[in-house]
Amino acid sequence: MIVPQGKPAVVPDDGLTTRQRRTRPLLIVHTGPGKGKSTAAFGMALRAWNQGWPVGVFQFVKSAKWRIGEERALRVLGDSGEGGPVTWHKMGEGWSWIQRPGAEEDHAADAREGWAQIKRDLAAQTYRFYVLDEFTYPLKWGWLDADDVLAALTGRPGSQHVVITGRDAPEWLVEAADLVTEMGKVRHPMDAGQKGQKGIEW
Amino acid sequence: MIVPQGKPAVVPDDGLTTRQRRTRPLLIVHTGPGKGKSTAAFGMALRAWNQGWPVGVFQFVKSAKWRIGEERALRVLGDSGEGGPVTWHKMGEGWSWIQRPGAEEDHAADAREGWAQIKRDLAAQTYRFYVLDEFTYPLKWGWLDADDVLAALTGRPGSQHVVITGRDAPEWLVEAADLVTEMGKVRHPMDAGQKGQKGIEW
Repeated sequence: MIVPQGKPAVVPDDGLTTRQRRTRPLLIVHTGPGKGKSTAAFGMALRAWNQGWPVGVFQFVKSAKWRIGEERALRVLGDSGEGGPVTWHKMGEGWSWIQRPGAEEDHAADAREGWAQIKRDLAAQTYRFYVLDEFTYPLKWGWLDADDVLAALTGRPGSQHVVITGRDAPEWLVEAADLVTEMGKVRHPMDAGQKGQKGIEW
Repeated sequence: MIVPQGKPAVVPDDGLTTRQRRTRPLLIVHTGPGKGKSTAAFGMALRAWNQGWPVGVFQFVKSAKWRIGEERALRVLGDSGEGGPVTWHKMGEGWSWIQRPGAEEDHAADAREGWAQIKRDLAAQTYRFYVLDEFTYPLKWGWLDADDVLAALTGRPGSQHVVITGRDAPEWLVEAADLVTEMGKVRHPMDAGQKGQKGIEW
């Protein structure tokens, strides 16, 4: 990745100083069918941790083995006393909506509970860097009110960066985001008959 | 990210058992103009660390502030005694080829030195997970012999996973890789006149 340098292409007429604009809190979306959406979000969390920022992870995924590496690493980092503290929320432990969106009512209720917690934390400015991991799924399935999510995200106070990951990010979220990356699949080992493996997929 | 589950689309006729195929070492490329190429590689390193694997990072980037968050985090993790050890190589500290490929001779020599070290480590199986960060640039500029790189990567012994990041991955590398992700830019704050900021870009 090359960090953009020099002058931006456009200097916006937004009434902000360069410094204010520079430290403007970002809403970031990693979407698309390829790998690396969540992995890159957790990589960003390393930078936030290094700045001493409180990091909050909200994990909307299913399998117990998913994210175990990231979770352990961020817990060790958060407890190291060197960077910022890390809080890891596994919402509705045992949630299974992504693979089997069968018993919708319970999962939708879990999702709403998780979102309510995020909203409270945004209002209270609990963290400075948020990972909403696989958060596009409850949005996609209509379990959360889009207007409510959009208002809470775009109206969040202070300097809180939010990274949202998952396929099929809704258009309104992409429109609202400051930084959107689409991870495209070029080649995947599954295409050659290989299943996921430890240390790589989890 | 959804971890692929169930049966692969194709069961290859490669003489390997499912288990052998499953733990086959991977050559992974993160390329494209978008964000997250290196960040996702460092996110993967968290998983490798969690497996107790020795992790080797070879950093082909310029600015002193690049990757400082990732480097500190991986050093703390490597020293924690909980996961695998981490070795971080900043090759040719102060290298500036990416931004100013001016004094080519020196940078090319540095790149060749760095690559020689990677080759030695691959042959000695020093690490189980390698991040070759921004390694596409010395390839792109022809500072390394493509045949030599390809042979060392594809002929590496044992179970060594290698992740290569950077824009403009050469076609032969994409062809040789098991997993290729293209990070596409959908929207970037630079487009709205915002420069990079700490905790996000570094």
